[in-house]
Amino acid sequence: MIGAIAAVLTTLAFLPQVIKTIKTKDTSGISLGMYAMQVTGIGLWLAHGIHIGDMPLILANSVSFVLSGTILYYKIRSS
Amino acid sequence: MIGAIAAVLTTLAFLPQVIKTIKTKDTSGISLGMYAMQVTGIGLWLAHGIHIGDMPLILANSVSFVLSGTILYYKIRSS
Repeated sequence: MIGAIAAVLTTLAFLPQVIKTIKTKDTSGISLGMYAMQVTGIGLWLAHGIHIGDMPLILANSVSFVLSGTILYYKIRSS
Repeated sequence: MIGAIAAVLTTLAFLPQVIKTIKTKDTSGISLGMYAMQVTGIGLWLAHGIHIGDMPLILANSVSFVLSGTILYYKIRSS
């Protein structure tokens, strides 16, 4: 139960950052390295989830992949 | 193996952000909501790890907790 709440929080945490970044286009303080690593790491989590057929892992990482990928896109576009 | 690389990448992804934030003190583009949710979620992952006695979960989330907590500290201090 604690694990489920933890998973939802860390997955949806990217959402307020996505909203802020789309609204303000202010990415100067955001680290390109962080989002390059996040998107790669989350992509590997997703591959791992597909490989072992674990639906919670697939769902959570699909959401995180789109959200952190959006932040990475804005960071690259503005730099 | 893919899961292990994924875990290392998503755990250490916060490190370039911590370095950038400490160097530049530029947190205007960083979302307070994101780091409030991250630190809470990672704290719950850590509690879950201690509860079930899973060492990889404890280690990875201890590192993430300190790193994302540092970003949250700088964000709160500058706002």
